[in-house]
Amino acid sequence: MTANQPDPSPELDELYRGFAEELLVPLWTEIGDLMPMSPSPAMRPHAWRWKTLLPLAEKAGELVPVGRGGERRAIALANPGLGGAPYATPTLWAAIQYLRPGENAPEHRHTQNAFRFVVEGEGVWTVVNGDPVAMRRGDFLLTPGWHFHGHHNTSSEPMAWIDGLDIPFVHYTGSAFFEFGPEQVSSTETPERSRAERLWAHPGLRPLSQTAPAMNSPIAAYRWEHTDAALTDQLALEDEGHPGVVEPGHAAVRFTNPTTGGDVMPTIRAEFHRLRAGAETAPRQEVGSAVWQVFQGSGTVRVGEAEWTVDHGDLFVVPSWAEVTLAAATQLDLFRFSDTPIFERLHADRVRVGGQR
Amino acid sequence: MTANQPDPSPELDELYRGFAEELLVPLWTEIGDLMPMSPSPAMRPHAWRWKTLLPLAEKAGELVPVGRGGERRAIALANPGLGGAPYATPTLWAAIQYLRPGENAPEHRHTQNAFRFVVEGEGVWTVVNGDPVAMRRGDFLLTPGWHFHGHHNTSSEPMAWIDGLDIPFVHYTGSAFFEFGPEQVSSTETPERSRAERLWAHPGLRPLSQTAPAMNSPIAAYRWEHTDAALTDQLALEDEGHPGVVEPGHAAVRFTNPTTGGDVMPTIRAEFHRLRAGAETAPRQEVGSAVWQVFQGSGTVRVGEAEWTVDHGDLFVVPSWAEVTLAAATQLDLFRFSDTPIFERLHADRVRVGGQR
Amino acid sequence: MTANQPDPSPELDELYRGFAEELLVPLWTEIGDLMPMSPSPAMRPHAWRWKTLLPLAEKAGELVPVGRGGERRAIALANPGLGGAPYATPTLWAAIQYLRPGENAPEHRHTQNAFRFVVEGEGVWTVVNGDPVAMRRGDFLLTPGWHFHGHHNTSSEPMAWIDGLDIPFVHYTGSAFFEFGPEQVSSTETPERSRAERLWAHPGLRPLSQTAPAMNSPIAAYRWEHTDAALTDQLALEDEGHPGVVEPGHAAVRFTNPTTGGDVMPTIRAEFHRLRAGAETAPRQEVGSAVWQVFQGSGTVRVGEAEWTVDHGDLFVVPSWAEVTLAAATQLDLFRFSDTPIFERLHADRVRVGGQR
Amino acid sequence: MTANQPDPSPELDELYRGFAEELLVPLWTEIGDLMPMSPSPAMRPHAWRWKTLLPLAEKAGELVPVGRGGERRAIALANPGLGGAPYATPTLWAAIQYLRPGENAPEHRHTQNAFRFVVEGEGVWTVVNGDPVAMRRGDFLLTPGWHFHGHHNTSSEPMAWIDGLDIPFVHYTGSAFFEFGPEQVSSTETPERSRAERLWAHPGLRPLSQTAPAMNSPIAAYRWEHTDAALTDQLALEDEGHPGVVEPGHAAVRFTNPTTGGDVMPTIRAEFHRLRAGAETAPRQEVGSAVWQVFQGSGTVRVGEAEWTVDHGDLFVVPSWAEVTLAAATQLDLFRFSDTPIFERLHADRVRVGGQR
Repeated sequence: MTANQPDPSPELDELYRGFAEELLVPLWTEIGDLMPMSPSPAMRPHAWRWKTLLPLAEKAGELVPVGRGGERRAIALANPGLGGAPYATPTLWAAIQYLRPGENAPEHRHTQNAFRFVVEGEGVWTVVNGDPVAMRRGDFLLTPGWHFHGHHNTSSEPMAWIDGLDIPFVHYTGSAFFEFGPEQVSSTETPERSRAERLWAHPGLRPLSQTAPAMNSPIAAYRWEHTDAALTDQLALEDEGHPGVVEPGHAAVRFTNPTTGGDVMPTIRAEFHRLRAGAETAPRQEVGSAVWQVFQGSGTVRVGEAEWTVDHGDLFVVPSWAEVTLAAATQLDLFRFSDTPIFERLHADRVRVGGQR
Repeated sequence: MTANQPDPSPELDELYRGFAEELLVPLWTEIGDLMPMSPSPAMRPHAWRWKTLLPLAEKAGELVPVGRGGERRAIALANPGLGGAPYATPTLWAAIQYLRPGENAPEHRHTQNAFRFVVEGEGVWTVVNGDPVAMRRGDFLLTPGWHFHGHHNTSSEPMAWIDGLDIPFVHYTGSAFFEFGPEQVSSTETPERSRAERLWAHPGLRPLSQTAPAMNSPIAAYRWEHTDAALTDQLALEDEGHPGVVEPGHAAVRFTNPTTGGDVMPTIRAEFHRLRAGAETAPRQEVGSAVWQVFQGSGTVRVGEAEWTVDHGDLFVVPSWAEVTLAAATQLDLFRFSDTPIFERLHADRVRVGGQR
Repeated sequence: MTANQPDPSPELDELYRGFAEELLVPLWTEIGDLMPMSPSPAMRPHAWRWKTLLPLAEKAGELVPVGRGGERRAIALANPGLGGAPYATPTLWAAIQYLRPGENAPEHRHTQNAFRFVVEGEGVWTVVNGDPVAMRRGDFLLTPGWHFHGHHNTSSEPMAWIDGLDIPFVHYTGSAFFEFGPEQVSSTETPERSRAERLWAHPGLRPLSQTAPAMNSPIAAYRWEHTDAALTDQLALEDEGHPGVVEPGHAAVRFTNPTTGGDVMPTIRAEFHRLRAGAETAPRQEVGSAVWQVFQGSGTVRVGEAEWTVDHGDLFVVPSWAEVTLAAATQLDLFRFSDTPIFERLHADRVRVGGQR
Repeated sequence: MTANQPDPSPELDELYRGFAEELLVPLWTEIGDLMPMSPSPAMRPHAWRWKTLLPLAEKAGELVPVGRGGERRAIALANPGLGGAPYATPTLWAAIQYLRPGENAPEHRHTQNAFRFVVEGEGVWTVVNGDPVAMRRGDFLLTPGWHFHGHHNTSSEPMAWIDGLDIPFVHYTGSAFFEFGPEQVSSTETPERSRAERLWAHPGLRPLSQTAPAMNSPIAAYRWEHTDAALTDQLALEDEGHPGVVEPGHAAVRFTNPTTGGDVMPTIRAEFHRLRAGAETAPRQEVGSAVWQVFQGSGTVRVGEAEWTVDHGDLFVVPSWAEVTLAAATQLDLFRFSDTPIFERLHADRVRVGGQR
């Protein structure tokens, strides 16, 4: 309760009743919660374990068909601070999606921005605006807002991956539009590389036929081989005494839109981090929330008061302004996504590195 | 409930229990609510009447002191769809603030962006980063994020005005910071024009000492005389057969940041509209929510299914994508603010004029 | 001649002849001139006197008709370093234009950006894309590239003013297009304010019917009353101990495009400066060239090695990187335009204030 | 001579003498040349032959030492329309540079933007701000303004390549600064890839340690293998019926700054074009001038009234607004650079494709 409240009295009670009747609320009783000294979000740090998630997804694969209506066999992380809503953070959705051999997730489009990250496996093609995009281990794949997309599994093995979207943000702010597309994916081709990559995934080059800035990255798939090479190069540069890493023992890349140099989609930032065995990051706080997934290796993570040992496939979430520290037991590779572009575009971003002084 | 759900079975029940235990939620049961075909916000259209608001504010003036702790004698509109929270819309705060003769609202600063709009009265100076800004009828006054500000009433009359902020958005997304300033306003000067206006409120001119773009408008006060003149000019141009008005009989201006030409603050758009007596606007839908206040005149407003006759000082709120129509009984002047810059900066803005076809 | 040249020899002579035959030039003989240590432009500082210019313009008024073909009775400053070309600087054109009672300068349009500045007199309307714009003492008036424009003198007195354009730059870089319009101006109305001003010259306000950024300022006329008020305000703020002036005793404004906050046209910057009697500016060097005109008052100007006493109407030109100092004998008001936006947009701008250290 | 001149008379002669004495030039006698209906640049289309250039460069290698003072053994194309100045176009410099085994071109920096393109050979490293960059056949290498750079040949063979700079533009506009660096290159390492490439030449990825937009591309070298792959992909997409090529049989990429998606440097655009054997481009006109070099293959080029058969290494220049058509005899690969960013940044760009209608 906010300090320095007026003394209780019958008149005050009557005034407060009047407020309630007229759909009014005084600031002076609420300001402490509404306007805290620093962000105090309802969401809580939490970790989900891959070895728990995957069997539940497999079981859903047996019991729940995929098709029109439910649209996707996706199981979302529900932050324990957010009242049971399927929200990893107030702004971000994170789910494990599961597709069995021969299955097809029907095409649709929506204003929510989406991506996939593949922690293991392969055999699914996601078809984005008619362009078939192979999904393979370590790849980061985009489905920007209002792009039609569906998935199908052409292999003899099931495949699971992670979906990231801005569903909670779009829901809260009221900007959701949705349209159904065909029930079967519009292309069943299975090329190694998408047409988008063939046009756009050449370093520093763009097709002369497309020279305007685009609000979303046209690179449909960021392949693991490139991400791995970039991280390897950064650590080699550090070994040689040259700049490049974020901090000692910590290489990282941001996935970007080659038409602007900015984030891949307007609301979502995506990054890949690699820590050398034994490295530890400086404590870092940032306005905005994030979801991390361990790609390979193991280590210890502290988020605010929470601490977990994490391993392959584990996911954890970071509230706004919570302090994060990573310590690598082995070489530790992590995928991260966050809502930071929202704050940067609204000039509300803040970062503090090195902890409370 | 979303269509095409799997048939109930004990295994499915067990699976769903497993989800709940592990803080997981399936998409296929929630997608209908989460990802609607078009925005279906929880907030509802609603109107608050000035003749109800003002007496409650006056009563609060008698019973509730203003000072450190409660900080402001502000009474917020609580949208009936938002569970009692003091939110006019999911993103916007709107409140009546009331200051009695000789009172002082202590200085503080916060990352929330704020403004005042004066529907009647005068006699208060708001002091923004040390610059005293007179508040008078029809004026629109800025307190951008992280600017220190306090108010004091130097007159012998109480004064009421409207505060607009992005408190709900900042609260939801977790980006609030707050600091206390001095308990007494840092300047008790009462100049006609603020220093900010003297530097910046000259049409098309900027001081050579400040040539970089600024994230917020440096114009502390947009005076009624300028707003009124601009609206008058637009209607005169229409009379002479020249372009300028938005649509027949409907003049409007946007308050802008002269260093960029864009909105006054990163999250808030503010506009002033004037309808000739008898004019009616085309139905308009827009992503994002808005708050309107009648400045003078009367007319009829339709927002989605709701319809009200509105008069001086009345406030009403518009949910995302709800259709709005205004019809002027007399010349009708309205102030409007909205969260549209959030959507424009995130490329999620959409507008439809002319209704569902 | 550049240092360290190869020793002369018959073979070298033959090589150099071979170069010449094949339209080739070696860098090693030219680098000293081509790539100097700091800008060493061919243009020279020079001053033109109003009391000389005006009688020549009057005489031209008697002898030279104005009409299609010659298009304008404009007499350009020809920098003594530029080989007789009608260029005030390598990039900028400055001319005195003269129109007698009842005369009409036919409409045309061109990609060159143009403006007028009125050092004295009134009675001419310039018609820009059909909008009649009164020209009065102290006004700064725009004719951006590809806008049709003509002038006519509706008064019983002749009128002279200054034209500024980017003709030399456009000529050198090869980007000139030109079209003839009607021989008589397309509107003979003589309103006090142009339609453009009525829509746009309200501080911090823009018409809701035009919300996109525009490459040129839509304000057709920047009136002296606003410029004068802004300068007066800055000096008053200085008297009161507040920031605002550029340096002690030196107030200045930049004319801006209200849709962007940037310069009025893509290639031309325009400013107005006021020095208190007795004030002296710090030495300033800037990449790019400039033209100044004294509006009122008198003082001493140093540009590089040159020094002049200047008075009402006098014009002087400043080469790139030449050091400029102004000293005011009386209150000294000056209009200035420059090509700085070219360098800023190409990231080639540099400024040094305070002289060579 | 411009039409409709005043009749000759003694008074007119005297007036014109008065103009000349006072360094004034009338517009009405010059407007036809100064403000043409469309660009009519002084520069002329011209082609230089590699089989002529290379022997002259070799001969210069014998006779002219490279070192401090002359700085570079570079031989510039001197456009026949530009009075003997070493300018390929009014804005662009193009030269063949030649370095013999063991030679070293001393380090310096200048505000002129520079690049190298390698039509054949290898064995030189250019050291840019201390980072050694291997130069190999087909590579495009950057030395943006104010970066220190020198070259040294570590091989047993001489090497020739093409330099492109904005020297004429910088000279004309007066924005040149220059500084000497060490006489010997600051690093004699000979890595396969530069540090810049290791950090930046990964498609769609940027190092998290450098997230701000940069005015120049940080990619020091655009390697032929990537350019070739991108062009090959475009033609394959065309074969499969998908979009990507500029026009039938014509693939092309633009070299870009990955931090912005824009051109590699503020004043210079660089592209690579590939025509299938037998393909012919649509006639194209563009504001701004360009230099092309044939990388491999042969064909016919028309530029305005000129027409040449071109082959490996040949260079040709295109004036502003001249119509260009390319016809490929064999598969034809061409490198192109132009000054288009200058016009785009100043909103003076225009393009016409398909010829005069």
